[in-house]
Amino acid sequence: MSEHDLVIRNGTVVTGSDTTVCDIVVSGGRIEDIRRNAPTRKQEIDASGKYVLPGGVDAHVHLDEPPFFGVKLADDYQSGTISAACGGTTTILSFVQQEGDQSLREAVNVTHEKARDEAIIDYAFHIMLTNIDEQMIGQDLPALIQDGYTSYKVYMCYDGMVLNDGDILKVLETSREYGATVLVHAENHHCIHHLANKLEQSGRTDIENFHDMSPMPVEREATHRAITLSELTDTPITIVHVSAREAMDQIRWGQDRGLKVYGETCPHFLEFTEDDVKRPGWEGAKYLCTPPLREGANREFLWRGIANGVFQIFSSDHAPFIFESKEGKKVGGETPHFRHVPPGMPGVELRAPYLFSEGVMKERISINKFVEVTATNPAKIYGLYPRKGTIAIGSDADIVVWDPDREVKVTRDMLHDNMDYTPYEGKILSGWPETVISRGEVVVSGGKVCAIPGRGTHLDRTPQDVNPAGGRVA
Amino acid sequence: MSEHDLVIRNGTVVTGSDTTVCDIVVSGGRIEDIRRNAPTRKQEIDASGKYVLPGGVDAHVHLDEPPFFGVKLADDYQSGTISAACGGTTTILSFVQQEGDQSLREAVNVTHEKARDEAIIDYAFHIMLTNIDEQMIGQDLPALIQDGYTSYKVYMCYDGMVLNDGDILKVLETSREYGATVLVHAENHHCIHHLANKLEQSGRTDIENFHDMSPMPVEREATHRAITLSELTDTPITIVHVSAREAMDQIRWGQDRGLKVYGETCPHFLEFTEDDVKRPGWEGAKYLCTPPLREGANREFLWRGIANGVFQIFSSDHAPFIFESKEGKKVGGETPHFRHVPPGMPGVELRAPYLFSEGVMKERISINKFVEVTATNPAKIYGLYPRKGTIAIGSDADIVVWDPDREVKVTRDMLHDNMDYTPYEGKILSGWPETVISRGEVVVSGGKVCAIPGRGTHLDRTPQDVNPAGGRVA
Amino acid sequence: MSEHDLVIRNGTVVTGSDTTVCDIVVSGGRIEDIRRNAPTRKQEIDASGKYVLPGGVDAHVHLDEPPFFGVKLADDYQSGTISAACGGTTTILSFVQQEGDQSLREAVNVTHEKARDEAIIDYAFHIMLTNIDEQMIGQDLPALIQDGYTSYKVYMCYDGMVLNDGDILKVLETSREYGATVLVHAENHHCIHHLANKLEQSGRTDIENFHDMSPMPVEREATHRAITLSELTDTPITIVHVSAREAMDQIRWGQDRGLKVYGETCPHFLEFTEDDVKRPGWEGAKYLCTPPLREGANREFLWRGIANGVFQIFSSDHAPFIFESKEGKKVGGETPHFRHVPPGMPGVELRAPYLFSEGVMKERISINKFVEVTATNPAKIYGLYPRKGTIAIGSDADIVVWDPDREVKVTRDMLHDNMDYTPYEGKILSGWPETVISRGEVVVSGGKVCAIPGRGTHLDRTPQDVNPAGGRVA
Amino acid sequence: MSEHDLVIRNGTVVTGSDTTVCDIVVSGGRIEDIRRNAPTRKQEIDASGKYVLPGGVDAHVHLDEPPFFGVKLADDYQSGTISAACGGTTTILSFVQQEGDQSLREAVNVTHEKARDEAIIDYAFHIMLTNIDEQMIGQDLPALIQDGYTSYKVYMCYDGMVLNDGDILKVLETSREYGATVLVHAENHHCIHHLANKLEQSGRTDIENFHDMSPMPVEREATHRAITLSELTDTPITIVHVSAREAMDQIRWGQDRGLKVYGETCPHFLEFTEDDVKRPGWEGAKYLCTPPLREGANREFLWRGIANGVFQIFSSDHAPFIFESKEGKKVGGETPHFRHVPPGMPGVELRAPYLFSEGVMKERISINKFVEVTATNPAKIYGLYPRKGTIAIGSDADIVVWDPDREVKVTRDMLHDNMDYTPYEGKILSGWPETVISRGEVVVSGGKVCAIPGRGTHLDRTPQDVNPAGGRVA
Repeated sequence: MSEHDLVIRNGTVVTGSDTTVCDIVVSGGRIEDIRRNAPTRKQEIDASGKYVLPGGVDAHVHLDEPPFFGVKLADDYQSGTISAACGGTTTILSFVQQEGDQSLREAVNVTHEKARDEAIIDYAFHIMLTNIDEQMIGQDLPALIQDGYTSYKVYMCYDGMVLNDGDILKVLETSREYGATVLVHAENHHCIHHLANKLEQSGRTDIENFHDMSPMPVEREATHRAITLSELTDTPITIVHVSAREAMDQIRWGQDRGLKVYGETCPHFLEFTEDDVKRPGWEGAKYLCTPPLREGANREFLWRGIANGVFQIFSSDHAPFIFESKEGKKVGGETPHFRHVPPGMPGVELRAPYLFSEGVMKERISINKFVEVTATNPAKIYGLYPRKGTIAIGSDADIVVWDPDREVKVTRDMLHDNMDYTPYEGKILSGWPETVISRGEVVVSGGKVCAIPGRGTHLDRTPQDVNPAGGRVA
Repeated sequence: MSEHDLVIRNGTVVTGSDTTVCDIVVSGGRIEDIRRNAPTRKQEIDASGKYVLPGGVDAHVHLDEPPFFGVKLADDYQSGTISAACGGTTTILSFVQQEGDQSLREAVNVTHEKARDEAIIDYAFHIMLTNIDEQMIGQDLPALIQDGYTSYKVYMCYDGMVLNDGDILKVLETSREYGATVLVHAENHHCIHHLANKLEQSGRTDIENFHDMSPMPVEREATHRAITLSELTDTPITIVHVSAREAMDQIRWGQDRGLKVYGETCPHFLEFTEDDVKRPGWEGAKYLCTPPLREGANREFLWRGIANGVFQIFSSDHAPFIFESKEGKKVGGETPHFRHVPPGMPGVELRAPYLFSEGVMKERISINKFVEVTATNPAKIYGLYPRKGTIAIGSDADIVVWDPDREVKVTRDMLHDNMDYTPYEGKILSGWPETVISRGEVVVSGGKVCAIPGRGTHLDRTPQDVNPAGGRVA
Repeated sequence: MSEHDLVIRNGTVVTGSDTTVCDIVVSGGRIEDIRRNAPTRKQEIDASGKYVLPGGVDAHVHLDEPPFFGVKLADDYQSGTISAACGGTTTILSFVQQEGDQSLREAVNVTHEKARDEAIIDYAFHIMLTNIDEQMIGQDLPALIQDGYTSYKVYMCYDGMVLNDGDILKVLETSREYGATVLVHAENHHCIHHLANKLEQSGRTDIENFHDMSPMPVEREATHRAITLSELTDTPITIVHVSAREAMDQIRWGQDRGLKVYGETCPHFLEFTEDDVKRPGWEGAKYLCTPPLREGANREFLWRGIANGVFQIFSSDHAPFIFESKEGKKVGGETPHFRHVPPGMPGVELRAPYLFSEGVMKERISINKFVEVTATNPAKIYGLYPRKGTIAIGSDADIVVWDPDREVKVTRDMLHDNMDYTPYEGKILSGWPETVISRGEVVVSGGKVCAIPGRGTHLDRTPQDVNPAGGRVA
Repeated sequence: MSEHDLVIRNGTVVTGSDTTVCDIVVSGGRIEDIRRNAPTRKQEIDASGKYVLPGGVDAHVHLDEPPFFGVKLADDYQSGTISAACGGTTTILSFVQQEGDQSLREAVNVTHEKARDEAIIDYAFHIMLTNIDEQMIGQDLPALIQDGYTSYKVYMCYDGMVLNDGDILKVLETSREYGATVLVHAENHHCIHHLANKLEQSGRTDIENFHDMSPMPVEREATHRAITLSELTDTPITIVHVSAREAMDQIRWGQDRGLKVYGETCPHFLEFTEDDVKRPGWEGAKYLCTPPLREGANREFLWRGIANGVFQIFSSDHAPFIFESKEGKKVGGETPHFRHVPPGMPGVELRAPYLFSEGVMKERISINKFVEVTATNPAKIYGLYPRKGTIAIGSDADIVVWDPDREVKVTRDMLHDNMDYTPYEGKILSGWPETVISRGEVVVSGGKVCAIPGRGTHLDRTPQDVNPAGGRVA
């Protein structure tokens, strides 16, 4: 019996489908036994009246990447994983991005370096593919997939990152052949360029115009196109950070046709609207993200999309640019220029608490659906299941004891990222992760971090079955 | 340790969301422990290489009801539950129907009598409401709901059974107020009457014309109407035995609008088509059911509907009229008259094996989806969860050890119902339930029934939450 | 050359498809010649800078019917047709309704009596079918159709008027067989009853609750059902007075499936909203109609539906109950009871001016679409074309010279109906019918009525082709 | 009274909205008078029992363009316009395409040269934009629009022709600003490339694989994208040669949202299917076109789209490559290589007769709809109305006397193009254009061409209103 062996007693244990009051016995970092009246272990956690949930899997976290818009992300793997853990997340999927003339493999290695001694929870990488050539498609990508790097992100916009449809088709086919899955940032590059140029030509450069650079049809179109590329290659994709109804309707349309399309949405799209970007002065810069925030009426539809299964994944898209650095991007004057302020909002710590409070406690979704979209589905879709994402015999003991009765008022100071603001300042949330356990080790307890940086490990994966039953792994 | 205490060892245990290789320890008829390397129990079942699944919950089974079209159902609670058990089903929901001038309560009591000494597995009743008056809505129905009879079936067609929309609204409101749920047989009564009369007037009375009495729009319309009645009262309904795409599209439409609509479909709609009803002579009578079998192209859409979550429930709609009795309905000649042959097909035994073979083994759906629609969802929707429908600590040990490698050729003789035919004659199925356990007791083993009639018990329920999170219990 | 022979010179002549500057020569009440530089006639009308349009055909006008809610309509055939003519309408379709134990034929004859000496413009009748029996379906209806009464209205609601689906199917089949078309008032009777009872039981009887007696789903459902009945019998129908988006979407859905469904909407649904019914005190009673006024956001969709061809017909649904009579319906107190105030709004005079001003002048629709929905399509659909509804050789010279530059502020006093209020009080309209000509006779000129009651005649029709090319006559 | 003055007597004159028996008096090449019993003119045509229709406007005709796939089109302006006229078409819109390093203006001038002495009917040009730069967008295009070249075609595929989305947005904005309209060939370039490469790599190079180079999703995607580009710039577009249901559904979706999207389809998509391309040997090459022919079930939906107003325009997309030249493209063997055979089918002569026979005579569409989509709408959308496209006072006397009773069996020999095959060989058509009149001059009579090449003239246009009422000119 190791020192970390423990029993979590009398909690309401929840999986994607079930809810049971029982004990969870953890041994050697794994779940050993599920029963009642378990014999005593070294460490005992009383979870009576609490939920016992699978640790969250945040499938969309930006940490310590090369500068974007000339600005470094505020969080590295230490602050980022601590913040994640404090919000009940025990696994993150972050990104590998090539810098300079690095090969993909070099970029992977560099990212391993960044994470190795810093992370307090486990992690895996999505690799950004921003540059396609024959060597890459024919050699590098297959080799990486075979080594267990089985998820890739492609961009349909952004200078220097955008892939054209032909390149995306190649990525999809190679993914299918070797066993990887593809995340798509769906906004139409040419449209954004065109509309941004028009805004500049007409002098509408204040960020309050940010939305008009990529209105709804720009995202909807790219979503439809991405689904088509997936359809033509019969390869699953995930449309990430879906902002609003029209893009969501395209995903449902694809799903109803039997296509293998997953959808991901994020907390900020449920909470904020385009009006927040129009807050006076620099304040609006705090709410800049891509795709941009939309009309408020969309939020009801996104909630339905979570409840109804349009969205399989609920991620943070944590992209922490400190406000000061946003302010620093003063171009040609005192007002923030929509094209120079780095887009992105922090959120890794509040992702699960937000969904628990606004979703479960307000009865928009069941607690099982909460587990499904915050943990089980992302683990399944990205090849981490059953090691992560559920409470089952043999799975890693990544477990959160969640207190549904605790009420928390969000302030910048209570959060653990390196940011100087939170967009959720002042928001009251119902329910909070009380104890967070990673591989049997309590990493957060009562808000106190009790894990040593570097304890988190990279999660090796193996090539995936990209043609699962029903076209779906989740 | 009781004599029934047992361990099911090394199986692949499946729930609606998870798949784990482990042992299941059963004690006192309940699931006591889930782990690996469980200590020895009196009874040991080796499930290596097998699936260990929750016992099936068949939510739509007709047994020992008053005569329909003047014909008695072939199965009573003994043959019906034996047949169910042999097909891996450990719970059925059958029907209470008033006969003569019985009160609802009397009809319930009579049905209890019919089941008590006969059933080998557990059961609960849906009560058919075919006659609405003030006493019934104001007194009888509330009292029955409070006594735990929490599911009711209404018909939008059939002389003597049809309720008008006003009556259905009353049923829905009372159900909402006291905590019951409502199943709807959705076909438009007036349309059927009209079309049947026309067929008769034109001499098209052979059952090969059966479909034209209730073509797709007749079911689609009633489905839309039922959804509207549910919407107006904000009360969940289940549209039962959905036959084809157009009705399914209405259900999806309602679900996408956030309405509380569940869908059920059945094996015969996945396997057979309107052409089967046109088999020569009396043969077609074997394939008569309502709603009728449809064009074959619909089947692909129904499969998608199961995979995509349009359908929450997969039931047999077992309605066993022996062929001889169908043949007996010779009216005005030697050809079968579409209006006199009782509609209904047997299927309680093959329901789960069919879906396993055609769905899971042919990779149309995942094994988790199989469990969800054959067991977990019906248990949740009809108030039997968590006692039934899953494998979880404290749940009844209703478990099936399923051999995915066994291939079975369906013949009439291998089945355990009282029928003289099976529509699936000659069909090869992959996978078969090897051992069926009810409350810890092996009731079927290797095809041999080893349970005594009367061991099955009625499942008491309590009033349900009809406004669950996300509008859905499943 | 008769005294009425005339030339309308240099106007912009508009049909459903064309726009041409030319002269119209009228002789013997008919259009004789279309050209430029026509020789002089006895009467000359200079239409330079004006539109020359087909006289309007208002396909939905209630005049001199039996009391409804115990209240007589304010308009008879004299005031009604004068009001219509002043608004640029030269043909109305009004209703025959049985009273007491009249036969249908007697009711037709009585209605002829009412109209004969009163009308100043031409008219035909829709016959309401509120009572179906074998004699009626087998004898009376065929005979009336063969006599040229080729349009019938059925109600899916209202005590004493509602037909069940079986009766409607019979009406549709007989219409198809003999050559008539059917208008449908689509609201679900049972739902209205149920919801009205609930409102009463909860004391919410003020008319501000009127909308909750028949919310959108009640109309949408009946619309879907009516389309299904039409589909099953392959018989065209017109869904009249469509109030809002959801019902319209059902019609479009049917049309896209190739079904023979026409749609009609009305000015009040484009202008007013459910908020108008909530005006304080008795004021709201002025805005009562069925289906009720809806949320304002619907109006944009109705406009699209006109522009896009979902709606073929734009009618007034003129149902004039004087405000005083509405006020007279004080039941149990000083506030208006939603169940006792007769629903209906006047509008026959403003129908075309409203659509011209808000549609054509505001560029929501083309002038050709205006002609199509106010004149050509209703004439075609109800068997009056080519005698009415267009400007073509041989057609009746029913012509309106429309001044697009005249601006009119609507007041009660300027209108010619017998009402004591107009819901459009104070509304500014752009464009106005300057000269209105019926069969070559100027009946209104510069706002002055110059026709003698009784000059209007009944328009004999003949059985229609109910299976036109493309399933559509318009 | 000129020698060409004539009267067409007693025909059934049809416009987009009306049908009238009357005489048409033509003077000076224009329609002078519409009446009955017209005074005698020099030339009299008895049209009793015949239809008198506006001469057809074929908005999509390829003549005498630079070689495509290295092959010259078989038809120049002489054979092409003769063939058109013989099929009842009196106006064509053909294409200007740059060759070598021609400027757009030079290409226009060269095309004028090609047409001037050859055409027997009138014509205007769509200008292909295959190369976008600042000079072109800023100077050349505005100048051309101001000179009356007001319709442009862009390609979303084909090497050397494809524009990216940014370029298309620029074209749309310039068109909007100066008053032109844009035709879009909607297939995704990158997808075609990718799929074609795959076919080649797998050795599937026979043209029977042609469809797999651009399956339905490739066209559907581009259609959705084109609609989005139109939406973002609020500029009307026409999606040309729509092949099948999924693309059509996108157009309807856009129209239902109030977007300014027109649709065009063509006879070959109504008649042929992907199976025709699989005819043995070289035979399939006769049926090659882009987008490719689709599954037969689509045809019913296209017919509905014409009847219901999804399609405004019915064009031939006449692209005549003689069979011998297709056969000439033998690459690497005796079987036709899908990438080397020029795609395109002839059809300018049969376009209107085909639609008359299969649409009007088979009662799929009304005769008014026939006129609308073959003449009035294309004239309106491309700025030729009211000079062309209708029968109205002052319009060019482009008129066809159409005999509905004549039955014609199509053979290669009866046609007047320069082709060596017709895909319609052996097809029986009901109805045929008997007399074809252009500007008052009989150019075809009883199948005999009686016009001198060079009599056809270019139709000058002026900048268009791109924001018409209801967003639509048709």
